[in-house]
Amino acid sequence: MNASAASSHDSIRAVLWQGDHLRLLDQRRLPAEETYVDCRSAAEVATAIHDLTVRGAPAIGIAAAWGVVLAAQNEPERLDAALAQLRSARPTAVNLMWALDRMKRVGADAAALAREAQAIQDEDLAANRRMGELGAALLGDGVGVLTHCNTGSLATAGYGTALGVIRAGFAAGCIARVYAGETRPWLQGARLTIWELLRDGIPATLIADSAAAHLMRSGAVQWVVVGADRIAANGDTANKIGTYQLAITARHHGVKFMVVAPSSTVDMATASGSDIEIELRTPDELLGYAGQRTVVAGAQAWNPVFDVTPAALIDAIVTERGVVERPDAARMAELFRRAR
Amino acid sequence: MNASAASSHDSIRAVLWQGDHLRLLDQRRLPAEETYVDCRSAAEVATAIHDLTVRGAPAIGIAAAWGVVLAAQNEPERLDAALAQLRSARPTAVNLMWALDRMKRVGADAAALAREAQAIQDEDLAANRRMGELGAALLGDGVGVLTHCNTGSLATAGYGTALGVIRAGFAAGCIARVYAGETRPWLQGARLTIWELLRDGIPATLIADSAAAHLMRSGAVQWVVVGADRIAANGDTANKIGTYQLAITARHHGVKFMVVAPSSTVDMATASGSDIEIELRTPDELLGYAGQRTVVAGAQAWNPVFDVTPAALIDAIVTERGVVERPDAARMAELFRRAR
Repeated sequence: MNASAASSHDSIRAVLWQGDHLRLLDQRRLPAEETYVDCRSAAEVATAIHDLTVRGAPAIGIAAAWGVVLAAQNEPERLDAALAQLRSARPTAVNLMWALDRMKRVGADAAALAREAQAIQDEDLAANRRMGELGAALLGDGVGVLTHCNTGSLATAGYGTALGVIRAGFAAGCIARVYAGETRPWLQGARLTIWELLRDGIPATLIADSAAAHLMRSGAVQWVVVGADRIAANGDTANKIGTYQLAITARHHGVKFMVVAPSSTVDMATASGSDIEIELRTPDELLGYAGQRTVVAGAQAWNPVFDVTPAALIDAIVTERGVVERPDAARMAELFRRAR
Repeated sequence: MNASAASSHDSIRAVLWQGDHLRLLDQRRLPAEETYVDCRSAAEVATAIHDLTVRGAPAIGIAAAWGVVLAAQNEPERLDAALAQLRSARPTAVNLMWALDRMKRVGADAAALAREAQAIQDEDLAANRRMGELGAALLGDGVGVLTHCNTGSLATAGYGTALGVIRAGFAAGCIARVYAGETRPWLQGARLTIWELLRDGIPATLIADSAAAHLMRSGAVQWVVVGADRIAANGDTANKIGTYQLAITARHHGVKFMVVAPSSTVDMATASGSDIEIELRTPDELLGYAGQRTVVAGAQAWNPVFDVTPAALIDAIVTERGVVERPDAARMAELFRRAR
């Protein structure tokens, strides 16, 4: 691995504040094109979040924070409406609600709001570095790791959550190979994670989501490492559809299962996974592939884009505040007590 | 359900013998186009099997049998070479080997070979009808069924194996709804199964392969019903990649798991699943779709297209000879003893 490959992830920035507008790397067009979308209002940011121009729980929280700054700059009389519109852009990721609550507490001053948005972004990057260290220390030597969806620089302020652990683990020499599920229907694994891993020179192999159990049986994987969109107070974790299935099959094969997310993803007001709203998206995402219609007209599809993995199937939840092994309500509460 | 819808599956024929050539419904182009490929030599049939123009374990056995007839008619001096070429077209489905062994025993007479190929085709249709009855009787009332890949008229001489059980179960009023996994990378579920179910007026919902566990947790599914490409002497079953994962998640949720396949799929010479060769296909099938590249250049992919479900995860294997519940080596052997 050469130095430029090792540091290339630093050049990927999904969310770029430009002083008077927000520039978003258009993740719908990657890896074919590296193009950007400029948002000049909170409404445009909300649309970009809904349309998946920007995605990944931490990144949408950061983008929403900058959306509030745009509202304060350009239409301060609509600040409350802008907050509400951003909040409803996607229902499952709690980082979105957390970032908006933080912005709301600042008040209406545009300069103060911009400082808070920058703080949210900077803190996310620092949290990712810290989680990378903490998670990598759990891996062991020469392991194969399976990940799902995209949790890298594209999904965060930089470096990544689960992909941050993978970056840190590879840099420390712990990881022999990374496997990425393609992550239907939106193909975040195929399009985004493989792209990020190749840029960093990390040995990566794409698999069909449905090949994970067969891969585990082969012995090639010792850890599944994933991100989270919302973690309930008891450790139940909502994440990209397919995560729950990976957790069941990991347990079946004695493969360890790690969730990596900043503490802003933990929603202590949500008692358990059954209280988490699961976003259903349009069936059209399943009725075609990369914009090409594949299914006969008149077909129905069910397209939940998240699922809930019960805490009992999770070996470790890694946050920047520390690691919770064998998570349950008591251990999750302890994480917040000891870190205060 | 009206009469024309009820009988519409009878109009789907994937493999049509035309007296001097074999006409195959081109399954690569469905459902967008119903086009046919005409094969005039065993080599062309072998190519059609390898390229997935025709697919589904029983259908490729039937197509291969007609390929032998073409060799006997047109190049009798190359009959042994044609048998070898057809045998190597795909490694996992044992029906292919079974049909070719049956043809080889007939000898070199073209007319006798044509009668044998027709018998193989007719027997497959009759077996599917019988399996439909036997499997439907196990379902219970008002159930939701999840299936994988395509096991219908397109994969067989007609009616289908797992899809035959679904057709019979729906006709008997046992099935409330069918869920079909899209079946990456080749999308047999999305493209073919949904198309067949809609033609029959059976309520069908497409899901991402990775949504199966979340669906099971919702309580919508009581049975997983799948086909097989090879069943070992102990009941271990090779089937489309993703089947093993479904079996693990079904057991986790108390959902029953049924394998439906003609006895020609049972390979008593293969002791267990670990002796089954798993076909690896080109990574390109995962790196894009229909000529559109979705993954960055230089990416690696692992594309096993089958996996093995251990007998211990299977509640029932349904063949035309009878049903084997909780399959193991002794019960599988008993199936062949009692049917003789």
